[in-house]
Amino acid sequence: MRFTSEQRLDDGVLEREFTLGEIPGILWTPASASAPAPLILLGHPGGLHKMYPRLVARARQSAAEGFAAATIELTGSGDRPRSAAAEQARADLRRALEAGEPVDEEVVDRLVLPLVDKAVPEWQAVLDALLSLPEIGGPVGYSGGVISIGIRLAVVEPRISAAVLFAGSFVPRALFEEARQVTIPLHVLLQWDDEGNDRQAALDLFDAFGSKEKTLHANMGGHTGVPQFAGEDAARFFGRHLK
Amino acid sequence: MRFTSEQRLDDGVLEREFTLGEIPGILWTPASASAPAPLILLGHPGGLHKMYPRLVARARQSAAEGFAAATIELTGSGDRPRSAAAEQARADLRRALEAGEPVDEEVVDRLVLPLVDKAVPEWQAVLDALLSLPEIGGPVGYSGGVISIGIRLAVVEPRISAAVLFAGSFVPRALFEEARQVTIPLHVLLQWDDEGNDRQAALDLFDAFGSKEKTLHANMGGHTGVPQFAGEDAARFFGRHLK
Repeated sequence: MRFTSEQRLDDGVLEREFTLGEIPGILWTPASASAPAPLILLGHPGGLHKMYPRLVARARQSAAEGFAAATIELTGSGDRPRSAAAEQARADLRRALEAGEPVDEEVVDRLVLPLVDKAVPEWQAVLDALLSLPEIGGPVGYSGGVISIGIRLAVVEPRISAAVLFAGSFVPRALFEEARQVTIPLHVLLQWDDEGNDRQAALDLFDAFGSKEKTLHANMGGHTGVPQFAGEDAARFFGRHLK
Repeated sequence: MRFTSEQRLDDGVLEREFTLGEIPGILWTPASASAPAPLILLGHPGGLHKMYPRLVARARQSAAEGFAAATIELTGSGDRPRSAAAEQARADLRRALEAGEPVDEEVVDRLVLPLVDKAVPEWQAVLDALLSLPEIGGPVGYSGGVISIGIRLAVVEPRISAAVLFAGSFVPRALFEEARQVTIPLHVLLQWDDEGNDRQAALDLFDAFGSKEKTLHANMGGHTGVPQFAGEDAARFFGRHLK
């Protein structure tokens, strides 16, 4: 892991850009940390520059609670090399949505499964590197979409102790099956009127999770309209489980 | 309104039993209130003595946030005179549930509609009396089941500014229609595995509410298993809207 830039934000949070092999990312650590900080991995739908304002807001909120936070660029997004197959699947999805047609499961599989297969080992490699830093300790939480990546991580990565998942993307049938194997505490956010989201599928997915402690918070509004208080509820969830 | 008993709880909260005409109730006011306190009406499924431990816990939590809280015995419950028609409807409902049969809409109507018709004016009369006390101010919130009573109150009683509703009882079709007329901020609690509750009906009801700000919090467990943190979230909701 190589740090490529470093700046203090006005609230004292230290923001460092890094690369790990070909993966670019950002690490935020709290202004004053006496002990190694617990860590929250911030997932997002891809496009680190475009997503930066929302990511830094989530990182500041995490830092205020004593958590470090880190994100990486999603495979095939932002400045990372495109995959022709993924671009094709994305175009097929867009075409179906614009035509108002039901989205074929095969298209969802073609788009999401390779993403999960690539992104999860990347998160795990980044986690290895982050946990070797003296200022980062455990436990570790995952927060965000792409929800399928969160599901797989929760199943295969025992260092992740709790997850806040954003129900707002298409989920392959196979990931519903994996969801039954998830046992860590979950806090699921659903935007009730999310235009790009199938509400019933999101409720079915919530039902499928094997976790004994799982909470669904549904709020009004579209994909990016998560209210401030819902973010605070999510931060409190990590406060209960990562300390 | 006649106070019939008065005691200080160990946290300084003042608990007073009262009667208003034939309606018995309990009022809790915070230990130290410099200004008239906002008020939360605590709804419950009937049986004030049986429900007391849970009600006093909710009242203490409210008082800690600076709210007064009040509850009344539900019409036809506890020591109040029974209605033969309501008892018959309750028996019909129980018989259907025990036989594992679908519950007839007509039975739900027969059980719930007269309850709503009686309980809502009672709450309004109690609200008149409570708001005339110098230690009680506005705004006013309603918290609890019977959710149909909460729906009607939210529609007809303009002094209620926000409501926490427990989705855990049968709701007549007519109340779904009234739900569309509700416009105040709502915080709806759903126990995902509530044995006596139709989950899909609860989700449909949440969808029906006309409120621009409405939040659904679903947690695992049965009817009485609402986790401590869910109660705290509900208290914060009132903190945002009643101050």
